[in-house]
Amino acid sequence: MSVKRYRVGVLGATGMVGQRMLALLENHPWFEVTALAASEQSAGKSYREAAHWNLDTPMPEIFAGTTVRRCEPPLDCDFVLSGLDNSVAGGIEEAFAAAGYPVISNAKNHRMESDVPLLIPEVNPEHLAAIRVQQEKRGWKKGFIVTNPNCSTVGLVCALKPLADAFGLKKVLVTTLQAISGAGYPGVPSLDILDNVIPHIGGEEEKLQSETLKLLGSHGAEGFRNAAVTVSAHCNRVHVRDGHLECVSVEFEHAAQAEEVLRAWRDFTPAVAKHKLPSVPVPFIVYREEQNRPQPRVDRATGNGMAITVGRLRACPVLQHKFVLLSHNTVRGAAGAAIADAELLAAEGLL
Amino acid sequence: MSVKRYRVGVLGATGMVGQRMLALLENHPWFEVTALAASEQSAGKSYREAAHWNLDTPMPEIFAGTTVRRCEPPLDCDFVLSGLDNSVAGGIEEAFAAAGYPVISNAKNHRMESDVPLLIPEVNPEHLAAIRVQQEKRGWKKGFIVTNPNCSTVGLVCALKPLADAFGLKKVLVTTLQAISGAGYPGVPSLDILDNVIPHIGGEEEKLQSETLKLLGSHGAEGFRNAAVTVSAHCNRVHVRDGHLECVSVEFEHAAQAEEVLRAWRDFTPAVAKHKLPSVPVPFIVYREEQNRPQPRVDRATGNGMAITVGRLRACPVLQHKFVLLSHNTVRGAAGAAIADAELLAAEGLL
Amino acid sequence: MSVKRYRVGVLGATGMVGQRMLALLENHPWFEVTALAASEQSAGKSYREAAHWNLDTPMPEIFAGTTVRRCEPPLDCDFVLSGLDNSVAGGIEEAFAAAGYPVISNAKNHRMESDVPLLIPEVNPEHLAAIRVQQEKRGWKKGFIVTNPNCSTVGLVCALKPLADAFGLKKVLVTTLQAISGAGYPGVPSLDILDNVIPHIGGEEEKLQSETLKLLGSHGAEGFRNAAVTVSAHCNRVHVRDGHLECVSVEFEHAAQAEEVLRAWRDFTPAVAKHKLPSVPVPFIVYREEQNRPQPRVDRATGNGMAITVGRLRACPVLQHKFVLLSHNTVRGAAGAAIADAELLAAEGLL
Amino acid sequence: MSVKRYRVGVLGATGMVGQRMLALLENHPWFEVTALAASEQSAGKSYREAAHWNLDTPMPEIFAGTTVRRCEPPLDCDFVLSGLDNSVAGGIEEAFAAAGYPVISNAKNHRMESDVPLLIPEVNPEHLAAIRVQQEKRGWKKGFIVTNPNCSTVGLVCALKPLADAFGLKKVLVTTLQAISGAGYPGVPSLDILDNVIPHIGGEEEKLQSETLKLLGSHGAEGFRNAAVTVSAHCNRVHVRDGHLECVSVEFEHAAQAEEVLRAWRDFTPAVAKHKLPSVPVPFIVYREEQNRPQPRVDRATGNGMAITVGRLRACPVLQHKFVLLSHNTVRGAAGAAIADAELLAAEGLL
Repeated sequence: MSVKRYRVGVLGATGMVGQRMLALLENHPWFEVTALAASEQSAGKSYREAAHWNLDTPMPEIFAGTTVRRCEPPLDCDFVLSGLDNSVAGGIEEAFAAAGYPVISNAKNHRMESDVPLLIPEVNPEHLAAIRVQQEKRGWKKGFIVTNPNCSTVGLVCALKPLADAFGLKKVLVTTLQAISGAGYPGVPSLDILDNVIPHIGGEEEKLQSETLKLLGSHGAEGFRNAAVTVSAHCNRVHVRDGHLECVSVEFEHAAQAEEVLRAWRDFTPAVAKHKLPSVPVPFIVYREEQNRPQPRVDRATGNGMAITVGRLRACPVLQHKFVLLSHNTVRGAAGAAIADAELLAAEGLL
Repeated sequence: MSVKRYRVGVLGATGMVGQRMLALLENHPWFEVTALAASEQSAGKSYREAAHWNLDTPMPEIFAGTTVRRCEPPLDCDFVLSGLDNSVAGGIEEAFAAAGYPVISNAKNHRMESDVPLLIPEVNPEHLAAIRVQQEKRGWKKGFIVTNPNCSTVGLVCALKPLADAFGLKKVLVTTLQAISGAGYPGVPSLDILDNVIPHIGGEEEKLQSETLKLLGSHGAEGFRNAAVTVSAHCNRVHVRDGHLECVSVEFEHAAQAEEVLRAWRDFTPAVAKHKLPSVPVPFIVYREEQNRPQPRVDRATGNGMAITVGRLRACPVLQHKFVLLSHNTVRGAAGAAIADAELLAAEGLL
Repeated sequence: MSVKRYRVGVLGATGMVGQRMLALLENHPWFEVTALAASEQSAGKSYREAAHWNLDTPMPEIFAGTTVRRCEPPLDCDFVLSGLDNSVAGGIEEAFAAAGYPVISNAKNHRMESDVPLLIPEVNPEHLAAIRVQQEKRGWKKGFIVTNPNCSTVGLVCALKPLADAFGLKKVLVTTLQAISGAGYPGVPSLDILDNVIPHIGGEEEKLQSETLKLLGSHGAEGFRNAAVTVSAHCNRVHVRDGHLECVSVEFEHAAQAEEVLRAWRDFTPAVAKHKLPSVPVPFIVYREEQNRPQPRVDRATGNGMAITVGRLRACPVLQHKFVLLSHNTVRGAAGAAIADAELLAAEGLL
Repeated sequence: MSVKRYRVGVLGATGMVGQRMLALLENHPWFEVTALAASEQSAGKSYREAAHWNLDTPMPEIFAGTTVRRCEPPLDCDFVLSGLDNSVAGGIEEAFAAAGYPVISNAKNHRMESDVPLLIPEVNPEHLAAIRVQQEKRGWKKGFIVTNPNCSTVGLVCALKPLADAFGLKKVLVTTLQAISGAGYPGVPSLDILDNVIPHIGGEEEKLQSETLKLLGSHGAEGFRNAAVTVSAHCNRVHVRDGHLECVSVEFEHAAQAEEVLRAWRDFTPAVAKHKLPSVPVPFIVYREEQNRPQPRVDRATGNGMAITVGRLRACPVLQHKFVLLSHNTVRGAAGAAIADAELLAAEGLL
């Protein structure tokens, strides 16, 4: 697999998520970026001109001179990754799918639709079975839409998956401390967040409470069935650049000792491990023993930003256990999530 | 009551809490500061020399030239406020109480003792009955010790008190986002907190989980009885100067509608309102209607830093209701808390 | 003068500068706000609805219900303060002046015009003589335009004024560390400034280099004459909310000892002191002896934000002296500057 | 040179500079770390226990289990890198040199001594001739001391070197905006720097003003001769983790056009380029064309943190040219500086 076998188009290539996608794809072993697309006002410019680059690593030189295209099919590529904003993603992604392109999207628009997989490769690869249903229902031959979850949902669900498998989940109460990059660029004004916390992120609690059920649920003849877990979320924006931290309390169906919980995390091997997907880290979940970890700045790069760091497992007097988790919101929670989805599609022969 | 009737000594006057005490006492209508005491290395210096002042308001000129004393009785005052560090507070406070001084302490050392009131004037003024028990037990004639709670406990308990009275409390799950000033000075190194969150504060979760029970409990012939509520806490340090924000989920004994919860907060009048204590704000609890409030920088000064700001009341799928609260950790949660306690003691004729 | 004698209209009332104006005018002894005006999209709404309030103090209740007007004459007021953005200020301010309103503007549009006073009451009150020239030239009977300087210019010129008077100024080299509030709201994205410095502020160096010459220059029959001083500026945006800090090196015409420089600052009494203008602080310039002052968070509120704090005077090996100054950019450098200008106009009988 | 030929001991291995040294040496092509030494209280512990690791990259596993030694000879190594604090570095470094170890030190203690090279490989490699003088004078046979400059001096001198060679330097006026990591750990308290600037760093201005003269000066039979340039510095601490930004105004002996200045930077090839030292970046100086660069967070990693980034060259009305420079203070300005010095010593056969 050392030859780059797939040509990728990136929709929304100039935005925060698009930038992360390009940074992650620069040296990808399977995928080669062959098309960049963005809004009307970027179309026709070089990527260097069109993008306000704001990652800490420099803009990859190989993309700087590329001419940005409009977000319309056809594009010169085998499939598209969409980092488009919700305000426009819906229709554009459907147009590409209808035109025969597999679309892997970070936008929320199609996530909760009854025929669209909401996919984390390590968590619910069996949901890809919905693609055939989708194509039949919508009359699409080759194209389809697969989505990755909201940035704060990914970390939570990844940490819960081994526990759900081992003990069954009944209740989850989560409070998030989310990074500013999750709001895109320009995003959060510095005057709002310096020496401050904003205890509200529009729509975020709802996404955490609904997406988690779909991701941990099943897919069968009758379609998606939600997991029988109750989730409650408090979402906060804090003065951190990258890395969503989440404080979680859980109650299981089958009571477990702390040592069993640790073992469930330690021993969890995703079903997709067999594919050796380039973006799926080993280990997938890292437990830190230090009493003051995980921390966003220190742990967000674990597993190239794709691992979930967990720590501080202890008894919860109200539910059963509590712990802290961290995931990189623009890598594991957005750009890297979409790329990992694409890798699984490639490995399964669906691209 | 316009004449300053009581002479105050401040123990630990050079520390963060001591500084706040002095700032709040500068123009206090009842209390006049007549003695400043601190550690060996400060004793004998002028306050200006001894204190590394780090409030945003300037050091009050009236204290700058005062010579700092050792923390030993006698001091020239009617009672003492203690902003001492836990590492030394225990013995020093006992020595002052034994020497006949009423001691109002912000330190944790004596809070949970069976004969020491842990006092929030608006919440549990009836706990002052324990003073007589304490004096008898310890053989103290005039002196005694009263304590105020930990900074993150105060906000939580104040917001819960009207709900406990109205509906009964069964379960509380709280996640805190606490300010750096809570760790004193020098406290949190900037290298640890810039672009970061620290998901651990030593002993804090334990204090929240135990102090809350004592504060909301009763005092009778048999001593203190804990409230029958279960509390679970996650504590985090965030990049905010002042103001602890807390995300709270609650379950009541008697189910209530959101409107009833709002009314319980709105209509709550503390029993001590009759005393018109200078540091007890009216209103005591402020509910913000905006969906992104309270916020630390914006709301911490509400009621001169002594009010509790609450917001975002909504249904909690796991427990029953969830909301956000904010309190000023070094005012309402420390220095102002001790001063309010002293005011109640004064009003009750106990100084 | 205890009766409020003048009715004020505020143009651009919903912006950052307009908000500061209202906060400062809430309890002003001479001026009463009788009209609020802003852009089309705000007009017709209540001020509470129209303004995204982001000062740390709450929105003054007395303005919350006021209906916001369009920025067109007539307005129900005796004069207008303009906190308008440069992109629209020029024409609107002229329209008000032509309609007979004295206009005191914080915008840059008219500052450098040959018949418009660029005014700091403590520095160049004699420049008000240009008003008559302006009215004659433009055919305005009652109305006129007076401007206050750019936020980083004010602090520099105020600190230099006593030195210019005493020793003559030849060369000034200044490096600024400017607060984010200087960029308005939403202004600087948090992603740009967290853990960062931006060493460029569009047009700022040019304003410092040109406005300083006009402010320290003279006004006579031939109009304005620039001061014969050379100024060079480096401007930076730093992660501070309010307060512009400036590192200054100076060379005088007549060499002076450090003690003489300190005395020049200490002994400086502005000519306008006789008017006892409400917003002109006494002392006007505060020298801090501590070796690590002034600091933005600690010193910006000095003199209600209207004093200039200076410190660290020491020899400059390249020029002659160097020092550090601090001024509050949205008070002394913008809203308060315009109000102080209006006060001087009132005291001089020009309103 | 692919075999690791030299065994390195690191003094002060648990401090901020020592940690950076280890991070940079983990995969060094020439040097293998064979000894870690630190203070009494660390000696005997494993490095994992002894060090409060606070880089963003994880502690290299290969050092975690190493037992920390006392800072006394003998150590099992060919030479030592010293990241010791000034308070202890002086005597310890002399003891190692006397015992026959080449010592490359980041501490200030010996920098300005008349027989000790203050070395930047790209700037003044000829100063190594002083080693022989030092050994003769002090009676040391094999051992010697070489130092690297202060963190804010390195960036300034590197940017000035090509200009000094091309045009001669007369005057330099520099204002620094320095990162908190320059103060070590725990270093700057977060309460001091949040929403603030500290316009003073003890001894820093003096170091910039004196070290620059030695570094740009010559070494001959009569010893070191200072460069004939006058330097004036203003030093500030800002809220940035890593990366010192400096605003510089310069006057040359021979006037130059901007284009010539740019060419001098672009065309500069250090004499040591022939050695292909692993830590000397190519290019050594990077000029950014964007008008708002360099910026600490964005540019500090340029050239693995060893390149100097320069930007905003423009005319200075007071001197001749002005520009902005950035260097990574704990890499190029400390740990990497010492390692580069060691590489030059190795390449010159002096280890």
